[in-house]
Amino acid sequence: MNKENQARIIELVKQAKPLILQEMVHEKVTEKGAADYVTNVDVAVQNYLKEALGKEFPDIALIAEEKENLGLNSRKSYWILDPIDGTTNLIRDYHLSAVSLGLYENGEITFGVVYNPFTEELFYGAKGEGAYLNGTPIHVSDQQEFKDAVVSFGSSPYEKNRAKELFPVFYNIFMNCADFRRTGSAALDLCYVACGRQHAYLEQNLKPWDYSGATVILREAGGTITDWENKEPPYLENSDILACVPQFRDILQRLI
Amino acid sequence: MNKENQARIIELVKQAKPLILQEMVHEKVTEKGAADYVTNVDVAVQNYLKEALGKEFPDIALIAEEKENLGLNSRKSYWILDPIDGTTNLIRDYHLSAVSLGLYENGEITFGVVYNPFTEELFYGAKGEGAYLNGTPIHVSDQQEFKDAVVSFGSSPYEKNRAKELFPVFYNIFMNCADFRRTGSAALDLCYVACGRQHAYLEQNLKPWDYSGATVILREAGGTITDWENKEPPYLENSDILACVPQFRDILQRLI
Repeated sequence: MNKENQARIIELVKQAKPLILQEMVHEKVTEKGAADYVTNVDVAVQNYLKEALGKEFPDIALIAEEKENLGLNSRKSYWILDPIDGTTNLIRDYHLSAVSLGLYENGEITFGVVYNPFTEELFYGAKGEGAYLNGTPIHVSDQQEFKDAVVSFGSSPYEKNRAKELFPVFYNIFMNCADFRRTGSAALDLCYVACGRQHAYLEQNLKPWDYSGATVILREAGGTITDWENKEPPYLENSDILACVPQFRDILQRLI
Repeated sequence: MNKENQARIIELVKQAKPLILQEMVHEKVTEKGAADYVTNVDVAVQNYLKEALGKEFPDIALIAEEKENLGLNSRKSYWILDPIDGTTNLIRDYHLSAVSLGLYENGEITFGVVYNPFTEELFYGAKGEGAYLNGTPIHVSDQQEFKDAVVSFGSSPYEKNRAKELFPVFYNIFMNCADFRRTGSAALDLCYVACGRQHAYLEQNLKPWDYSGATVILREAGGTITDWENKEPPYLENSDILACVPQFRDILQRLI
């Protein structure tokens, strides 16, 4: 993916903004209405990007949330898209939702874009070319003491059966770090580690579109990302995720 | 406090923006440097507002974080100020920090302003006159099912000894609601309940400047706020806080 194509894709992603904000901002919707609306936004953003990317890159298929993803071949290239990461936040007008897009090639993510239209923050990263927030290079925090770390907890809210084992893990981490955060957007959590706003993020059983796009942003910013057993994430499949600054990897691996 | 004075105070609070953002935005500060910087910002915002409010309302004393607050008299009037609520977020450039100001009169808060200079969101409320976000009336969510509720957890990060009893409470709530959030700013959490972004917020042993200013915003938006024993908060003293939409009060009171 050359620079020109990268810039073109970034522009395509940013053009999703009016699809996401139009009604949320201008209409007072009911809770039920908002949930329906968000589903519509999800589909609208996905259809728009599927068509726009398909036109420019006809040989690359799309893997996405609102879609059946069958017969994937790990040697092919794919776009991996979450049209709206953080749908509960979108329903509630919480301003922490993002479009997340990654390019999977040769077993890894080589280009990723995460865009929050509410804050106008666009994160992107390309393998070997760095990570950026609105065009400015970003880097993970150089904080050295884990007691000063801010760790973002992913709660796997759709799989409550995990909580009984998960909350003691959260407790262990909290007792050793400064504080925890919970944003409700995996893609933004990974980017927030990348730009130094927090030092780690962990969640179980994320879907490919939740985490894949942001992995290259985090790595290019100096961060590390694996599953909970310290292995490379599979990208095309669900995975537990532990993302953090390198200096806190050992301690987090022990605490989880 | 008449409308003209309210508007004047809102303007004074908004004018704190350059004191808060100038260096954070334009300089790449080290972690240690950022911590020192935030302390300086705290003091600068407090000194600025103390002087500005003192000039316009010479008879009302100020209670604030960066200050010894001795010999308070509950029958007097006070400004209660947190120059920066969410200092860890400010250090990390997390964009969730706010100036919080309340007017205490006759045993209650009659006027409150909470201002996040990063998002340019200004919440205010006046007793009997409603609550507003950037001039638009706000109201708490009308969600009826607790299983769909989003609850913000306050971790009391400076008192880790509370966590052993607190995390089981968090677990109980999480198992019954949709998901949790953690922002790191008590004032914004209260305002986020007020404007429907979340349905509840709870934390133990908050200081007066953490919670007082936002109480009138939340109540005027239709929300409820008490200590954890369902009693009126003391405003001039530390308090556990349970803030929520009225329809979820009973269930939350049972779960904590």
